[in-house]
Amino acid sequence: MIIVTNQGITGEQWENLCKKLDDWGFQIHVIQGVEKKVIGAVGDKRRVDFHFLENIPGVEKVIPILSPYKLAAKEIKPEGTVVEVGDLKIGGGYFGIIAGPCAVESESQLFETADGLKKAGAKGLRGGAFKPRTSPYSFQGLEEEGLKILSRARERSGLPIVTELMNLTELELVAEYADIIQIGTRNMQNFGLLRAVGRQSKPVLLKRGLAATVEEWLMAAEYIMAEGNTQVILCERGIRTFETATRNTLDLSAIPLIKSMSHLPVVVDPSHGTGKRKLVLPMAKAAVVAGADGLLIEVHPDPANAWSDGEQSLDLPQFQDLITQVAKLAAFEGKII
Amino acid sequence: MIIVTNQGITGEQWENLCKKLDDWGFQIHVIQGVEKKVIGAVGDKRRVDFHFLENIPGVEKVIPILSPYKLAAKEIKPEGTVVEVGDLKIGGGYFGIIAGPCAVESESQLFETADGLKKAGAKGLRGGAFKPRTSPYSFQGLEEEGLKILSRARERSGLPIVTELMNLTELELVAEYADIIQIGTRNMQNFGLLRAVGRQSKPVLLKRGLAATVEEWLMAAEYIMAEGNTQVILCERGIRTFETATRNTLDLSAIPLIKSMSHLPVVVDPSHGTGKRKLVLPMAKAAVVAGADGLLIEVHPDPANAWSDGEQSLDLPQFQDLITQVAKLAAFEGKII
Amino acid sequence: MIIVTNQGITGEQWENLCKKLDDWGFQIHVIQGVEKKVIGAVGDKRRVDFHFLENIPGVEKVIPILSPYKLAAKEIKPEGTVVEVGDLKIGGGYFGIIAGPCAVESESQLFETADGLKKAGAKGLRGGAFKPRTSPYSFQGLEEEGLKILSRARERSGLPIVTELMNLTELELVAEYADIIQIGTRNMQNFGLLRAVGRQSKPVLLKRGLAATVEEWLMAAEYIMAEGNTQVILCERGIRTFETATRNTLDLSAIPLIKSMSHLPVVVDPSHGTGKRKLVLPMAKAAVVAGADGLLIEVHPDPANAWSDGEQSLDLPQFQDLITQVAKLAAFEGKII
Amino acid sequence: MIIVTNQGITGEQWENLCKKLDDWGFQIHVIQGVEKKVIGAVGDKRRVDFHFLENIPGVEKVIPILSPYKLAAKEIKPEGTVVEVGDLKIGGGYFGIIAGPCAVESESQLFETADGLKKAGAKGLRGGAFKPRTSPYSFQGLEEEGLKILSRARERSGLPIVTELMNLTELELVAEYADIIQIGTRNMQNFGLLRAVGRQSKPVLLKRGLAATVEEWLMAAEYIMAEGNTQVILCERGIRTFETATRNTLDLSAIPLIKSMSHLPVVVDPSHGTGKRKLVLPMAKAAVVAGADGLLIEVHPDPANAWSDGEQSLDLPQFQDLITQVAKLAAFEGKII
Repeated sequence: MIIVTNQGITGEQWENLCKKLDDWGFQIHVIQGVEKKVIGAVGDKRRVDFHFLENIPGVEKVIPILSPYKLAAKEIKPEGTVVEVGDLKIGGGYFGIIAGPCAVESESQLFETADGLKKAGAKGLRGGAFKPRTSPYSFQGLEEEGLKILSRARERSGLPIVTELMNLTELELVAEYADIIQIGTRNMQNFGLLRAVGRQSKPVLLKRGLAATVEEWLMAAEYIMAEGNTQVILCERGIRTFETATRNTLDLSAIPLIKSMSHLPVVVDPSHGTGKRKLVLPMAKAAVVAGADGLLIEVHPDPANAWSDGEQSLDLPQFQDLITQVAKLAAFEGKII
Repeated sequence: MIIVTNQGITGEQWENLCKKLDDWGFQIHVIQGVEKKVIGAVGDKRRVDFHFLENIPGVEKVIPILSPYKLAAKEIKPEGTVVEVGDLKIGGGYFGIIAGPCAVESESQLFETADGLKKAGAKGLRGGAFKPRTSPYSFQGLEEEGLKILSRARERSGLPIVTELMNLTELELVAEYADIIQIGTRNMQNFGLLRAVGRQSKPVLLKRGLAATVEEWLMAAEYIMAEGNTQVILCERGIRTFETATRNTLDLSAIPLIKSMSHLPVVVDPSHGTGKRKLVLPMAKAAVVAGADGLLIEVHPDPANAWSDGEQSLDLPQFQDLITQVAKLAAFEGKII
Repeated sequence: MIIVTNQGITGEQWENLCKKLDDWGFQIHVIQGVEKKVIGAVGDKRRVDFHFLENIPGVEKVIPILSPYKLAAKEIKPEGTVVEVGDLKIGGGYFGIIAGPCAVESESQLFETADGLKKAGAKGLRGGAFKPRTSPYSFQGLEEEGLKILSRARERSGLPIVTELMNLTELELVAEYADIIQIGTRNMQNFGLLRAVGRQSKPVLLKRGLAATVEEWLMAAEYIMAEGNTQVILCERGIRTFETATRNTLDLSAIPLIKSMSHLPVVVDPSHGTGKRKLVLPMAKAAVVAGADGLLIEVHPDPANAWSDGEQSLDLPQFQDLITQVAKLAAFEGKII
Repeated sequence: MIIVTNQGITGEQWENLCKKLDDWGFQIHVIQGVEKKVIGAVGDKRRVDFHFLENIPGVEKVIPILSPYKLAAKEIKPEGTVVEVGDLKIGGGYFGIIAGPCAVESESQLFETADGLKKAGAKGLRGGAFKPRTSPYSFQGLEEEGLKILSRARERSGLPIVTELMNLTELELVAEYADIIQIGTRNMQNFGLLRAVGRQSKPVLLKRGLAATVEEWLMAAEYIMAEGNTQVILCERGIRTFETATRNTLDLSAIPLIKSMSHLPVVVDPSHGTGKRKLVLPMAKAAVVAGADGLLIEVHPDPANAWSDGEQSLDLPQFQDLITQVAKLAAFEGKII
């Protein structure tokens, strides 16, 4: 940790600062610069909140040297984490494709989708039973009934289920039906929810927050892992920027960046990431070669009549085309699909 | 609602679209433009999700004309909502100042703060018992013990208490102690939590999300109000932008903008909004003249030893100076403090 | 064009508005909505500044229906523009790779680079003689001497040259030496410069502005094209967002988006787009499959001693590896390299 | 300067790095941390491009300790720079109000405006003769004729003139007529233009770039000052963020922040900063108390018929009201207007 002091730090402030660092077990190295004095404080204080030190009079800035996450760090597991549920494998060379509608609307809608996805070659089924919606007046999901339909679709198709958990109070219910529990964008820093899914054993798909840095995202994963659950899949789904021509700005550079920082697998959701059907295929392909470990694709048997997000959903023939192209590309890239 | 169709819309698609709009009870007005056909669809479909229509083949874009919030809209209560708890009044010409530490650390810390705030003239006491922290390894708050200390500080000082609710499961506990329940930035779109605080009667202070538009923020208030609780205070606390010289970018233009859209009171948190102690006073003053109904200020008796956010906390003499200056300015602006 | 009026528009304001629209040659279609009156104004007013209308009393909002660019629009040339200089072809199925150092530093540096690039299979040589630098105290380029070195490197290698024009006053000089004139990020809306390169005949590589929307970027191309030069290559190089882990956020979704809007070719600069050497290869590959028509890659024979941007430059063996992988992928995708 | 090395730095890389630092005249202080070796390199290398060092193998990150601007730094002139042209004084306790139309449209328009402004108490007249417009098909300004009209309005009213310079080639022309030369948002990093206005003697009003950090903005001022012209006024006019309810996000916290970093005066343009007429007055007042040294306000005698930006222009009675309120507030704050 590097501590930059103010030009006008007093002798008393300096002594106080050094004493504190010493009390906390840091070794102190002083560098007298041209205008300012800088301290190199040595000690693994990863678990200490370094901003804390910026309160001390005479301190201008504190610069951490070590990254703040530990369990999510690449060094822990350089070969990479593989999340495996039935035939679905994500990470460590395995590329997993999960698809399905934004929201579960009815048994017939979901069965038709699941049948089509299975036939096309998808390895997981996504579908929302609890839906986070900007307006309280929009459709909020079929809730438990939706979970039951998902469960019957799994029986029928053999596809494991990915579905979103929105509230702590619904954890048991969702965990009963889901194979992978999704934490949505708006809940990426809902720390109580993160801890709770960390204390159960189902894998967690953690979507990146709208305005979350890669570091904050890894820290959210760290919350889950710190409770014991290491089966975390990160999902890039676009960040919010000034550009309005796409729903979000899909940050594909986050994939190789995370691969250099963490052992956790990363999947990409080009449907939410772009918000436009015509951009889903090119961004799905780009995700493959950028190093992603899988995809999350919105598919609806009849997007024109979807209850939500239809403008970014593929229909079944479009998905069949996507999976064909993606599979060829993934094979070309040496991934196992 | 305006529906812009694609240049290449087929006759069948057109008929299908018109039929749907008709089924949903819209009156249809067709405008044949130079290159594209446009439909003006008349009917109050505020409660319908207009994006839904963008799924229909042949539709390029749907442009809503009415704003999506109803209960939060200015027309509902043009004179403005006043939230009143004891001596603290916010809105409708009343300017309320709430202050206190980021986190409750101990009885002595909070008592010293509360005594100082009371003496200085603050009307409310803030302090976190449950703290949302980026790192799972940072101090997370004293939890119930913190609430009890807050409650004793209230008895002692007479100041009503504002404290954050993070999880649904702690609602009863927090509602028992708090006078105003704060919903934090990271939970602005935690819809289950919003509904839950909407179903109880304590006023709610709703912080703006890091990447939330003003419209999304009003929709979050609408979630609370739709459940019956109309005592909502909006709190501008800075948005996330590319600028890193400040912790966030405090969007003061949101104050007069909201005043033109909604009857809800707006307070400003310049401490989180800037993240720098020296910017708190000028931004607090700017908030007053921009039309804010109150302030939320971080104050700590000993910022150098604060457990969190000390770099943006004022000490008691600094707060005394702030409240003196703000009170004069508020009086100059004709506000009742 | 759709004109939404205020709820409280007076009879006089309404008549005044309608008269104006009529004077300007619009056909007027009035839609009486539930709360507001809306006008559909028909006429190709692409060349009129629609914001103008928002000044008129009683007008709330004006929504254009037609896109504001005409010459850059896809309909003008659905088969796509191909820019061709010597062996370098970009667009219409041709994939062109341009590489070279950020700045021309010396003849030996550039000759070594050009020889290596030629051998590796690059089709164009980039290098800055005039450098836009944040600090006036940083190296600003070799200027005319740099252009001469570029020219000698072209003679030697046969590679056409891409170099940046920063000032109107240097247009003749730069145009004399360059095969393709680059307009940098900071000058994307330097309209005088755009017009000037539009009045000469060398192709123009137009980098996206740091905070430019795709529409503004196409309008910048329109400035060039409106003066007669239709040989414009768009270059995505990352936008500025809140994320600081990468130098910029590379917006690859802009590629297929532009392909659906415009006939202009799009190349990608993953070096500036990410600012990190290790991210260049995966993002270059992602650009290929996202539909880009080429790449701009920073290469330096000795990045450790580069005078600028070395942290994002590849050395020659790394570039050889990149071009090998990219060529295979481009061939797989059916592109001609 | 702090240099963080990679965990895997080799002995040879380490020696090479230390040798280089030594060659460049730095004193080296090595800190052996828990996982990484860190170097504190002492020496005033403000004029060196520190990113340069990130190229050296084994280097992970370079963290500068000194700020990169020198002439703009507060220490150079702690009492603050005052820019004075006729009766217009900006900085050092003087508050200057400049107003006028976005574009000069005609003599009668400008004369009517100037007369009204003079009567209301404005101290400077702004008006664009060269207009930067997103579309090549929009009105681009009256050019030299516009400058002549401005000059006649100055004769008539006595108000000094602020007008924008867009191109190097027009510098002599603009400098002949203008009292203060404005550099617009899109040209904030047009370094040739900055240098050129630095080599002449008229004061420069430097608008903040759409996506410019405060540090980059100060570096742009440094470009001007490094050429000899120290009469620079900074103008905050809003930055680009995800929020679309306002045209830009006015960053008022930049005012006190710059006041703590630089001696240069700062004025605020709430017209462009918000893009909405109704937000201009509250943001103008907020700017005063946030510590601004002046305002730039768009005023048009007939906003409904303005050729550009009418939706954010005040008419003369609205401006009269603004100046009355602002003057009272400025007096209350102890500023000399």
